[in-house]
Amino acid sequence: MIKAETIKEVRDQVRAWRKEGLTIGLVPTMGYLHEGHASLVDKAVSQCDRVIVSDFVNPTQFGPTEDLSTYPRDFERDCRLLEEHGASLVFHPSVEEMYGEDAATYVEILNDMPKRLCGQTRPIHFRGVCTVVSKLFNIATPDKAFFGMKDAQQLSIIKKMVRDMSYGIEIVGCPIIREDDGLAKSSRNTYLSDDERQAALVLSKAVKLGKEMAENGEKDAAKILDAQRALIEKEPLAKIDYVSAADFDTLEPATEVKEGTLFAMAVYIGKTRLIDNFLF
Amino acid sequence: MIKAETIKEVRDQVRAWRKEGLTIGLVPTMGYLHEGHASLVDKAVSQCDRVIVSDFVNPTQFGPTEDLSTYPRDFERDCRLLEEHGASLVFHPSVEEMYGEDAATYVEILNDMPKRLCGQTRPIHFRGVCTVVSKLFNIATPDKAFFGMKDAQQLSIIKKMVRDMSYGIEIVGCPIIREDDGLAKSSRNTYLSDDERQAALVLSKAVKLGKEMAENGEKDAAKILDAQRALIEKEPLAKIDYVSAADFDTLEPATEVKEGTLFAMAVYIGKTRLIDNFLF
Repeated sequence: MIKAETIKEVRDQVRAWRKEGLTIGLVPTMGYLHEGHASLVDKAVSQCDRVIVSDFVNPTQFGPTEDLSTYPRDFERDCRLLEEHGASLVFHPSVEEMYGEDAATYVEILNDMPKRLCGQTRPIHFRGVCTVVSKLFNIATPDKAFFGMKDAQQLSIIKKMVRDMSYGIEIVGCPIIREDDGLAKSSRNTYLSDDERQAALVLSKAVKLGKEMAENGEKDAAKILDAQRALIEKEPLAKIDYVSAADFDTLEPATEVKEGTLFAMAVYIGKTRLIDNFLF
Repeated sequence: MIKAETIKEVRDQVRAWRKEGLTIGLVPTMGYLHEGHASLVDKAVSQCDRVIVSDFVNPTQFGPTEDLSTYPRDFERDCRLLEEHGASLVFHPSVEEMYGEDAATYVEILNDMPKRLCGQTRPIHFRGVCTVVSKLFNIATPDKAFFGMKDAQQLSIIKKMVRDMSYGIEIVGCPIIREDDGLAKSSRNTYLSDDERQAALVLSKAVKLGKEMAENGEKDAAKILDAQRALIEKEPLAKIDYVSAADFDTLEPATEVKEGTLFAMAVYIGKTRLIDNFLF
């Protein structure tokens, strides 16, 4: 596996692969990789000749009060996981390499999509995501890019950005990977104390409850959301940020449960903000 | 020459050319082509195996009171010129093809560059330019793209955007092409009455005067600007929008004349807004 720290190294390698007629998959990550990321790499390896994984904690998607400085990092461990799963190249740039001294250009969706759900408490988050993902697209020029459904709003927004910006890149969404007890895999799970780790199960339990109600024919989204909220509120360590239903493509609030309805939540467990969801 | 109206046609053709190992140049235009555009195509043909010219009046770069609806168009004449100059493909999409029904994603430089010079009276112009040029980059995936120095601020902003967004595309700036009497070629010259056409010479005369002063060693930008303004103000049909000096790379106001100092102006001749400049 090639380890690249500069944009130029990635570009040169991509050019060489393109000369051989090889297809390229991109898996953008912020590192501290877990089985969720590994499943994205596996899917990319199964569909593309070469797989580039970016491993970069992107500062422009963190708000001033968020966990940029404490976000967990372990590049050596990441490399071992990526090598095991058959990645061809890991791109691990510095902030300086990605943004230089005076970067000022942003890619932004100027409708309500980035303001809904997580956007209510993270107002600049999706602007940062769209900007860094665009840059990674421009550097790696992949045929396909792979994103996890755990960040459902991110996936919806990236798909919208790709349509609007006419990128010739197929966006592949991949299922949420969970621990044995149901907790959705997340690099931020490492923040949880033992008590919080136990309390955090309330998210996946609420997802499971909502999913069962929807599969059993409940058509009123509010009833599902009420039941999910009631379950979460029983957990003393949990504080709801939002529990919402939205159309997956537009992120408009949904009242009726139908194909494409996303049930998403963000819940603080102690100081750690966790997200989970299901797509009907 | 291939005439493509859809993004997919361009993508398919680009893919075929890439398979043959051919290099691609892009010349973005708004059509109603003149010798200025032709010089960009000539340069592109001399440096690239295949040349794509986009011919699209981009609505997102026009303000609500600007000349979107009256902007001159003559696609058949454009095609003849492009064929003569050896373009390989002209991309002539509809607004619907480019923006669909609900496009909401924009590329924007969030520093002062798009607010200076023309940005003072055209506040959304460069956001529209950056957005459509990014889309054209993503559709045509060129090795090089060619822009005229007449739109000096646009060229400076596109270069900045390409750096910030990590596009692997070389931006080639090309000299201003002028009529025999000095008037910079522009599709908007067609708006001018006979009297206005004569009065419009005041721009190129002021450019020539400023250039001579700079070449003769004048280091004080204000003195050059004052002389340019005095010359323009003698013309009754002319109304100055701005006459300014700026650093070409940053567009920060310049007081001292040195390499890289841009002297730019926008002047209304009757109702027609014309621009001209020189780069020291």
